[in-house]
Amino acid sequence: MLYSKIFGKTQKETKKYEAKNQELLTKAGFIDQLASGIYTLLPLGKRVLTKIENIIRQEMEKIGAQEIEMPLLHPKILWEKTQRWDSVDVLFKTKSQYHQEYALAPTHEETVTPLMKKILKSGKDLPIALYHITKKFRDEPRPKSGILRGREFGMKDLYSFHKDKDDLHQYYQKVIDAYLNVFYRCGLKEIKITEASGGSFTKKFSHEFNVLTNAGEVDLIYCNSCSFAQNEEVATKKQNDPCPKCQTPLKKGKAIEVGNIFDLETRFSQAFDLKFIDDDGQEKYVVMGCYGIGTTRLIGAIVEVYHDEKGIIWPEEVSPYQVHLVGLNLNERKIKEKCYNYYQRLNKEGIEVLFDDRENVSSGEKLVDSDLIGIPYRLVISKKTKENVEVKKREENKSKIVSLEEAIKLFKK
Amino acid sequence: MLYSKIFGKTQKETKKYEAKNQELLTKAGFIDQLASGIYTLLPLGKRVLTKIENIIRQEMEKIGAQEIEMPLLHPKILWEKTQRWDSVDVLFKTKSQYHQEYALAPTHEETVTPLMKKILKSGKDLPIALYHITKKFRDEPRPKSGILRGREFGMKDLYSFHKDKDDLHQYYQKVIDAYLNVFYRCGLKEIKITEASGGSFTKKFSHEFNVLTNAGEVDLIYCNSCSFAQNEEVATKKQNDPCPKCQTPLKKGKAIEVGNIFDLETRFSQAFDLKFIDDDGQEKYVVMGCYGIGTTRLIGAIVEVYHDEKGIIWPEEVSPYQVHLVGLNLNERKIKEKCYNYYQRLNKEGIEVLFDDRENVSSGEKLVDSDLIGIPYRLVISKKTKENVEVKKREENKSKIVSLEEAIKLFKK
Repeated sequence: MLYSKIFGKTQKETKKYEAKNQELLTKAGFIDQLASGIYTLLPLGKRVLTKIENIIRQEMEKIGAQEIEMPLLHPKILWEKTQRWDSVDVLFKTKSQYHQEYALAPTHEETVTPLMKKILKSGKDLPIALYHITKKFRDEPRPKSGILRGREFGMKDLYSFHKDKDDLHQYYQKVIDAYLNVFYRCGLKEIKITEASGGSFTKKFSHEFNVLTNAGEVDLIYCNSCSFAQNEEVATKKQNDPCPKCQTPLKKGKAIEVGNIFDLETRFSQAFDLKFIDDDGQEKYVVMGCYGIGTTRLIGAIVEVYHDEKGIIWPEEVSPYQVHLVGLNLNERKIKEKCYNYYQRLNKEGIEVLFDDRENVSSGEKLVDSDLIGIPYRLVISKKTKENVEVKKREENKSKIVSLEEAIKLFKK
Repeated sequence: MLYSKIFGKTQKETKKYEAKNQELLTKAGFIDQLASGIYTLLPLGKRVLTKIENIIRQEMEKIGAQEIEMPLLHPKILWEKTQRWDSVDVLFKTKSQYHQEYALAPTHEETVTPLMKKILKSGKDLPIALYHITKKFRDEPRPKSGILRGREFGMKDLYSFHKDKDDLHQYYQKVIDAYLNVFYRCGLKEIKITEASGGSFTKKFSHEFNVLTNAGEVDLIYCNSCSFAQNEEVATKKQNDPCPKCQTPLKKGKAIEVGNIFDLETRFSQAFDLKFIDDDGQEKYVVMGCYGIGTTRLIGAIVEVYHDEKGIIWPEEVSPYQVHLVGLNLNERKIKEKCYNYYQRLNKEGIEVLFDDRENVSSGEKLVDSDLIGIPYRLVISKKTKENVEVKKREENKSKIVSLEEAIKLFKK
């Protein structure tokens, strides 16, 4: 992609932003705020989201979950059946002029459970796991934290259906592993799996997947030496208490919640009378689990964790492009030709390249923009590089001069 | 994919459906109706939608359009600026408990125009074309026609921005070609490009892309010998009049509208004061075009055109799977082993296979289901086929016995 053509370029605004992710994603041209808690993804941001969604699809497929797409308009009667029409305080509602009322989906238990009731023919078909990736709506009092908490946001939600608790618990563990894979591939390698409250979903505890960062909204009591972590809201331990697993003094810190999983038991299958006949001839309620990953929130979390004073530092698998080719001294015909030739060659090799082909922008400004956008590899072509190219990783300070062939090998490894 | 595992199987319901697409897509396990005009896509339906969306992305990329993702909640003030808050009769509205009011997007001129105003720096950056693929909401009085007309549906909308009318008209023609490519690849080879009214978008005529079928909601006056076609609402000619282009007597018929394009002129750039400074130093309003394809509607249109009394007949490029492998006599160990071996082999070749591995279902029922689901190639393995396989195209009556290798060549061509 030619940077001169891309819609949404870097900005030098000095406006005050509420959150670092909002500031960097806005200044680097990934997002645009339409209203409080409501964002447009510009081409660079949309590419990041698509990469995250495809990682999730791959990991969901590995655990046998099937992709569907459920509606965002939910008839009122479904939310009345679960007693959530009046009790969920973030619920947006809309009314047809032809009298039907709808909830704007903040979650999908109210549609996936009656769907399963219609389609499940036999207990032999259990377990079943269904997921979809769609918009969600939540009427947050005061959306802040950039794209970490919005009134409209992207989410992957997965629902699993089981004969009994044992089977749910086995699948629950598989989802934990799949989620850790997703976050790991998104560059988030240190995830705290945290006990938390079940909210409006279940009276049992739930588990959150938290990324430690001062930009977070969740307060954690956690152990640095082992996996122990509790959301402070439900914590039985406090800072400096010995860890119940390994005795290390516990720490307190802020985190961003990027995923959560709930053991729903039969809360929703009872509401919708979702039953099956078990091997013993008894009619039983289906046992359910639900599991969410905030997809647009994940973009914000990655930026909170991976940035420096110059800009974003994208992890390789979610970067909008693999390589940022920066052409300097483009007013010299030979250098310009070389840039376009190398750009075409990289494209032919199947490498995703953003090529800064702008001719009316100074070298300094181009390098500053490249750091702000944060693509993992920068490849500079200039008077100095002769027949070679200068390669630098965004996270490192040192660059090296190599041939194009060597650079290609590096990007393809 | 193993058919025994798939969520959403064939049904033998004898219920009365309003539309053929709804009947076949429901019975074959592609969709489930949640409420009037609101549908869930089951795994088979979601696969078709994903294929359509990817065809559209490829064709949009070819004409230089960039993918973004705009919000579905639109602040009221934006719709007031265009005088459409009160005048668009299908507009769903919702109100935050914190006082903001929003439209649920039925279209996106109200967000894309102010977005361009924020980001466009210079007339030199024009033309620009942006598209996204999202849900849309329209408060239809009485949704009918299955997934052809819903209260919530999928749509690709493209917006283009130009210095002048000439430039818009050039791009408009490029979009016409891109749209014809999309429809052609979706199997819809006979599209009538039709003059129609501009609705709430523009006072000028618009153009519709119509597929002739009795299931349609649009009345056309058209010529069978040339490209002439008019929506009856705006038609200057009537049935049996000589065609103004080629003198053939005109026909009248029903059609499904699968796409539409509008010359918006400066209707929205004036509302949002979207201007640029032209080469002559004058400030001018940006000239805009908008272009839509109903993605879920397209699924319905394809089914209306491609079905017979037995079921759906998917065009190859949008079929949920390329090959329906039907295993008969699976109670015989050798045949069962062969089925699973061949299934794995086809998967390894990168061929998308739906394998009917059910053991408790009769051969007759499996063949009936295969016709209903409508995957283009059926591949039967049974006692009769010995080491070979029986291949049949869904649209043909004759089958032939070939080796697996010959079948693979056929699927890969």
